[in-house]
Amino acid sequence: MAEIPTAAISRLVTYLRILEQLETQDISRTSSSDLAERAGVSAFQVRKDLAYFGRFGTRGMGYTVPILKRELVRVLGLNQTWNVVIVGVGRLGQAIANYPGASDYQFQYVGLFDVNPALVGQQVRGLTVRHTDELRDFTRHNTVDMGFLAVPPEHAQDAAQALADAGVKGILNFAPVVIQPRTLERGGPQEISDEWRGLIVENIDFLAGMKRLAFYILNPHLKDAPTPEDPA
Amino acid sequence: MAEIPTAAISRLVTYLRILEQLETQDISRTSSSDLAERAGVSAFQVRKDLAYFGRFGTRGMGYTVPILKRELVRVLGLNQTWNVVIVGVGRLGQAIANYPGASDYQFQYVGLFDVNPALVGQQVRGLTVRHTDELRDFTRHNTVDMGFLAVPPEHAQDAAQALADAGVKGILNFAPVVIQPRTLERGGPQEISDEWRGLIVENIDFLAGMKRLAFYILNPHLKDAPTPEDPA
Repeated sequence: MAEIPTAAISRLVTYLRILEQLETQDISRTSSSDLAERAGVSAFQVRKDLAYFGRFGTRGMGYTVPILKRELVRVLGLNQTWNVVIVGVGRLGQAIANYPGASDYQFQYVGLFDVNPALVGQQVRGLTVRHTDELRDFTRHNTVDMGFLAVPPEHAQDAAQALADAGVKGILNFAPVVIQPRTLERGGPQEISDEWRGLIVENIDFLAGMKRLAFYILNPHLKDAPTPEDPA
Repeated sequence: MAEIPTAAISRLVTYLRILEQLETQDISRTSSSDLAERAGVSAFQVRKDLAYFGRFGTRGMGYTVPILKRELVRVLGLNQTWNVVIVGVGRLGQAIANYPGASDYQFQYVGLFDVNPALVGQQVRGLTVRHTDELRDFTRHNTVDMGFLAVPPEHAQDAAQALADAGVKGILNFAPVVIQPRTLERGGPQEISDEWRGLIVENIDFLAGMKRLAFYILNPHLKDAPTPEDPA
């Protein structure tokens, strides 16, 4: 599995979401052209994206919804438990903690952290909010895979460093800030600090969505521009 | 401006965010390799993405931060006012309304809508929450460009239809649901209902971010896979 564009992974996630919607509508079969139409891409693209990970359908027969769904769940690693901490428990952090669907997969919130004394000690979704300073100690005694970052932008870099120091494997960053791994003073520009090696950062940026929307409202003809991978 | 991949637009948004961070750090010059390193892409990719929209730098001299920033703001359409309504004013809608940075650009919240009687009539950020049934009447008397959708997933399609009926130009969908345009009964599969023509839908899906993060934690070697556009 080399050279899979990140956009293909995003589309895989979209296909999975569509399959889940088909399942709730009791639709048990689909095809690359049906998936393509619902996802707003070409059927060629769907077949190509799926082909990175195996052969899921029968030629000319399409796909069985629950089977393709189960395979995509497996490919994406959603058939295993992910222990998550949320750093930042203001409106946004609480909205994330209560976002429907995370518990449909095995995302489990195991800790909530904030620096605001008004929040530390409060109960949110059955968890006691702890001070962010306790994060490292917490991960020493509890398995934590991911950290969701929902702090104000000016605190995002420091909070990300706290998560890196605490040894999480991935950060989902909701702050409109590009998180930078710490680099070693003596190292070259590529030499990043140990705690950042192999740490994955994904971003969910509301502002980025607003900006993309503004651009495409002004340039609607570009919206469904075929990607270079797509000969259609 | 044809055939610009959507991923290039997302990267443009990232470059702009980086330029803003450089500006707050009083850094006035940058280069494609500097931008590339901060964005986690190749310098070739940066130059290619920018070249879709014009020539912004001087060969061998790099870019002036405030000038490139201003140009990207213009390209993305962020130098004009965007009037926004939010549909769904629960925790998530309120987090969106209070998300820092939207007001740095000219995104202006002009209306908040919900169906919950406990919320209708309440004040949020200086606006009175109205019932979603009033949306169409509201847009008849007020200029509304975009609708942000922050309702529970089971209500997202109906709320999106209400926004389409109200004549917004774009929807930013925060619900983990793929919004489908209404199709005409008598039409072919491609024939969509008038109110959806030219309407742009962008998605911000927390669950999609969680799933991508899970995938890349399990497949870290794929994280920075060069895109097919990138010969590096």
